[in-house]
Order: sequence, then structure tokens, then C-alpha cells
Amino acid sequence: MVDGARIGARLQELWQIARGPGGGADRPAYSSAEAEAIALVARWAREADLAPGLDEHGNLWALPAGWEGPLVTSGSHLDTVPDGGRYDGALGTVLGLELAHELRRGTATGARPGLLVCAAEEAPRFGAGTIGSRLLAGTLAPAALSELRDADGTTAAQALSQYRSALTELPAVAPPIARLRAHAEIHIAQRRALREIGVVTRVASPQRMEIELVGDAGHSGEVTMEDRRDALAAAGEVVLAVERAARAEPRETVATVGTLALAPGALSVIPAHVRLGLDARGIDSTSLARLDAAIRAAVAEIAARRGIEAQIRRLRTGEPVTLDGRLAGAALDAARRRGIATCETWSGAGHDAQHLAALTPTLLLFVPLHGGESHTPLEDAAEREIADAALLAVDVLDTV
Amino acid sequence: MVDGARIGARLQELWQIARGPGGGADRPAYSSAEAEAIALVARWAREADLAPGLDEHGNLWALPAGWEGPLVTSGSHLDTVPDGGRYDGALGTVLGLELAHELRRGTATGARPGLLVCAAEEAPRFGAGTIGSRLLAGTLAPAALSELRDADGTTAAQALSQYRSALTELPAVAPPIARLRAHAEIHIAQRRALREIGVVTRVASPQRMEIELVGDAGHSGEVTMEDRRDALAAAGEVVLAVERAARAEPRETVATVGTLALAPGALSVIPAHVRLGLDARGIDSTSLARLDAAIRAAVAEIAARRGIEAQIRRLRTGEPVTLDGRLAGAALDAARRRGIATCETWSGAGHDAQHLAALTPTLLLFVPLHGGESHTPLEDAAEREIADAALLAVDVLDTV
Repeated sequence: MVDGARIGARLQELWQIARGPGGGADRPAYSSAEAEAIALVARWAREADLAPGLDEHGNLWALPAGWEGPLVTSGSHLDTVPDGGRYDGALGTVLGLELAHELRRGTATGARPGLLVCAAEEAPRFGAGTIGSRLLAGTLAPAALSELRDADGTTAAQALSQYRSALTELPAVAPPIARLRAHAEIHIAQRRALREIGVVTRVASPQRMEIELVGDAGHSGEVTMEDRRDALAAAGEVVLAVERAARAEPRETVATVGTLALAPGALSVIPAHVRLGLDARGIDSTSLARLDAAIRAAVAEIAARRGIEAQIRRLRTGEPVTLDGRLAGAALDAARRRGIATCETWSGAGHDAQHLAALTPTLLLFVPLHGGESHTPLEDAAEREIADAALLAVDVLDTV
Repeated sequence: MVDGARIGARLQELWQIARGPGGGADRPAYSSAEAEAIALVARWAREADLAPGLDEHGNLWALPAGWEGPLVTSGSHLDTVPDGGRYDGALGTVLGLELAHELRRGTATGARPGLLVCAAEEAPRFGAGTIGSRLLAGTLAPAALSELRDADGTTAAQALSQYRSALTELPAVAPPIARLRAHAEIHIAQRRALREIGVVTRVASPQRMEIELVGDAGHSGEVTMEDRRDALAAAGEVVLAVERAARAEPRETVATVGTLALAPGALSVIPAHVRLGLDARGIDSTSLARLDAAIRAAVAEIAARRGIEAQIRRLRTGEPVTLDGRLAGAALDAARRRGIATCETWSGAGHDAQHLAALTPTLLLFVPLHGGESHTPLEDAAEREIADAALLAVDVLDTV
């Protein structure tokens, strides 16, 4: 049985490392606070007879010392959003050590357990998330780190270099990809509607676009309504069209206009220029394609009707990821056997698991969110559900 | 007849004083550039046997020396928006000197002509316009100048003090309000649709409000469309409701959402908070009241339906101003007599004339805008129409 008291004590120790202005955990991607958390977890790994090391991307691997055979890994991440919660990333990392302990005698097929903590998972610092796992999977090129900058102008490449300098105590390791048999990540749910342990079968990938609308400026008192080409009025229609198009799709498909910048931006001037940032997600490629087409058609129709110039730029695209069906099925079977309430579900948020899935069969379990919202200091989880999720992950990895 | 060559040469001299980055005139309110323009015009006034002086608000008065009898004044302003045009304010000022010359022998009723150039008419520097004329009319309290700040933190009170220091050559004058029989302002039109000389009978006053919408933030991938309380989607509806409400009114009534700020403002977060800035104008109080009611009803309905909190704050209110009917009628009569194409019109933009109208019967004429837009370096006017407008103003003041 996993040790609930130890899990709680470790989450508390990680929580204390650095606190944001709102009292939450504050360990930005590739920061000294993330490095401090990595060093702490490496110490716990050593106490559990695992040998910790850092790969070139800053990911922590803690593997059974001297073992050259097949591996199963588990873990999550240790960086947080600003004023983040106690569980996001930290829970899956701490449980990775518990799973390694439970499976210390090896799995049914003779694989040995290790810990994998991916670096720089959260997007706020560099405007891009899951950096460590995407570098590991090869879907993000190391050269791209020189293009990602934080608000102070520090590149992700510079931050990674500083982060590694703070962790020179850890030996360099080459990622043992070829020896991996499976990976499991347990993560706190980010959707409050999920009331049972979630066995994730599909993970959305955000599709992002920028919509630029250009009309005419003009004096707010001197241009009649019919003579206007108001870019903000056009933007209002676009925002509603995006909402309508997403509502017409299955509930797993969502679309959000999260940013809007306008110019000139004065009370006495008709807006001439609006730039919208759109994030669309879903687990069904057909639905996403339909959504994309509906949004493009709506933008074209609105622009033509209003005499506005519209441009759509795709900022990021990506297909939804299907996680390993055998591992998910084994988790659902184990839950049935043990009488643990679970459901098959999807993730709208991105996780390291979806990128590691390209390297090895991967299981992703969600522990229901209690109390506050995800990504806030009030984020909470139930001890019983944490233990149940760990039990299911052990059951699944044990079959590998 | 007014001297077209002299008018052109003087506009050119004023244009050269200070140029903005886009090549336009750059004489901000209460700046050294405005003071330089005032000093130049004061010199021209002296050459025309007028005695210039500055009142405590920075307005330039140039009056017939030694005359203690009734006065008619004319003029406009000399400050500009950033990268402003050659005509806005400068034209009416230069024409004020022409009118004084034409009427130098006195009007039909024995009034003598003078020049009145109001200071700090343009709003961009301090976020408030027609400062000089509102101080003169008593509708802006001098104490308020300490509350108005420019982008560098300089208050309008400090700027006025520096501006007056740069003009110590000009004697202080007490505004000769009691002796005024009439005032005329000629201004370049700001509405391109006006194709004839405009005799302005009504001036709109901007009514401004801030609309604040508060919903729920949430992960853009993890909250289903039906569970959202998206403040930006609500704002999109409000922008369109404002447009619809204004379109339902007579064409002189307009409404513009010119600013929109949202938070958190990230691609992966549903907007929780939007603040809209609304400017509504019209020359019919009943229409404006109906517009206001329609906007408030729409905001309440949208907020209730979407579960959004909405607050409306009034930032500025003011009634449309009716200019003197006798002077406007005299201008239209004179135009008919002389065969000059004119039309009765309104102003959506604010002008010094609407504030001076509280002190003395006031005439406001618009010279059609040619070429570029108002408030840009491309703003242009036709020499013939300038001369015709001056002729009409002389005819009108001559009857006083």
C-alpha cells in the first residue's frame, strides 16, 4: 500500500520551496525553484535505492542502480504556473516514487521501475509547455529553445543552462528510451466535472490561430453608423461565431478567444485594427476540422459583409493523441476488480504523457479535483482517491 | 475680400513650428509649440493694429487698442493632435485675423472685431479637450487642471504654468465677456460626407460610460462550452448590441466601443474580466436617452442570460448644444444671396464654439474636408471654400 502520510509530507515539502504573491506554489519552468524541487526529489529517490541523473533536456531519471534490463517509469513534473497548486505535477512525481517502491521486486515480465520527472511542463514562463517531454520525444528541436523568451527576455536555452548548472550534483544520463516498456503519469484533473478517477484515452492538442481584422479608424462622433468599418464590431461577431461553432460540436470540442488587442484604442476613435488569439481543442480530428472550417467560413462572411480585411494565421497545429488502449483497458479492468469508481475520459489540457506516448505505451490517470480550481493555490485532492489511483497504476505497470 | 495668399502663407508658417514623427503638425495642448504658435499669431495681430494679451487660462485675445465698446470675436485654436493637419484650428485662427481686417471699420451696430484663440482644445495630451474655452465658460474648474495628467505625469496645471512663462511678452488681459456681442469660429469639417460649407446648428456632447463584465476564468481545454461564463463572449454581444441600438436611431446619433481590456488575456485561459469604453453622441437628447436605455437593457439581458456580472459606470455626460439660431439663419441667408453652396449641419466632434455659446451668440461654420482624413497630415481644404466661409462669417458678424 502506498504511504499516504509520506505522500502528504512530501507534497508539503515541495509546496514550501517557493511561494507566489497569492500564496501558491511558484516554481517556473527551468527556474532555480524547479531545480531545487528536482534536487529534493533526487534525494528521495536515492533513499529509495534509485540512482538519479539528469538528461540533456533537464528531465530527471531515477533508475534502479546497476540494472540494464527493461524498465517501467512513472512520474510527472515539478514546475508550476505562477501561484499554482499543491498537486499539479507534484502529485504524479511523488506517486512515481511510491509506484517504484511498490514494484521494487519487478513487474510480471521482469521490468524494473524507475522515476521520470519531465522538466518545464507549464507554459506561462515561455509561452510553450511540455518542453522537457517534447524535447525527449523529438517533437521540439533543441534549437527552438533559443527562440522562446520569458517576460525578462531570458531564452529557454539560457534558463535550461542555468537550471543544469544548479544541478551539477546529478550525473548526466542518456535517456534509456529503448529499455522502456511503459510509462504511467498520475495527474490531478483540471476539469471539475470529472467526479471519478479518470482513465484518459485521448488527449487534445491545442490548435491555435490569430485572426487579424482591419477596418477604418475615424472620429467616434463624425462617422455615421452606416459609413463605419469598425474592426471591433467585426471582432464581436467573430467571437460569437467561434462560440457558436464550438457549441455545435461534441462537448469534448471547445474553442476560446483568449486574447484581443485593438488599435488605436481610444474612446473617441473607431477601432481600425483588432487581433484575436484563438485556442481550439478536441479529441476528434473530424470535429476539429469541421470547427476550423466553420470558423474560417464565418470570418470570411463577416469580413465580406462588413467590408473588413481579415487574415487568419495558424500559430500551432497538432492532432489529438490516442493513448495506449491496452494499458487503459487494464486500468479499467483493475478498477472493476477492486471496486474503484473510474471512468474513461479525455484530456483537454496538454500533458507530458501525450508526448511520451510516442516513445512507449503510456497510461494517464486523473485524480478528481476537489475544492478550488486547477492552477490555483486552492486546488485540492482526496487522500483516498490518490491512493486508489496509485493502486490502479501499480496494477497496470505490473502487467507489463 | 480675404487674402488667400496671406492665409496660405500663415498656415504654412504655423505648420513649420513643430512636426510629429509622421510629418504632421505637432503642437500639443499647453506645450511650448502651442506657445510658439500663439506668439506668432500675436505678432500678426499687432501688425493688424490689434493689441494681444493672454487671459489666465492661456487663451489669446487680440482686441482693437483703446476700444472699450462692444466686440465681435472670431478665432479657433492652435494646438493639434499628434501628427495633426494643417487646417484643424489653424485655419479658423488665421481667418479670425482676416475677419478682423474685413470688419475693421466696425459692424452695422458699431461693434469692433477682435481675435480669440482658445488654448488646449485637443484632447490627446490630457485626455480632455476644449480646456481653454471650458475654463472661460466656467464649465471646467481651474482646480481640475491639477487632476489632468499627460503620459509623462505632468499635470495640465503645470503645463499651463510653463506655457504662460513662455508667453510673458503678452500682457495679462481680463476676458471682456460683458462686451462680446457675438463670436464666430470657422473650422475644417471632420466628417467627409459634408460636401458643402456647413452651418452648424447643433453640437453633440460625448456621453461616456465604462461597462465591466465579470465571468469565470478556466482552462481553455478543460471547461465545456456549456459550463463557461466567458466575459469576452458577453462583451462581443454587448459591442453588437451597442451598434444595433445606435443604428436604430437617427444618423446623427452614433455609439462607439473604442476600448476593450480583458483579463487574464492568455490563449489557454477563458477570459474572466472585460472592460469596455463606450462613447455615444448625438444632437437629440431624446434619441440619446433612448440609446442609453437600449444599451442598459441589452447589457442587463446579456449578463442575466450568460450568468455574467455587469456594471455600468457613467464617465461623462453632457447635453447637446444648440447654437444661436439667428446667426445660423443669417449665414444661410447670406449664402443664398451670394449663391454659395451651404447646408445646415451638426457637429459630432466637440469645438470651442459650443462652450463659448454659453457666453455669447456663436456661429460655427465648417469648411469641407478634402483629401485625407481629419486629424492626419493629409487633411486638406479648398481655397475657394475657405474664402466663401470667411465671406459668410463677415456677413453674419456685420449684422451684429
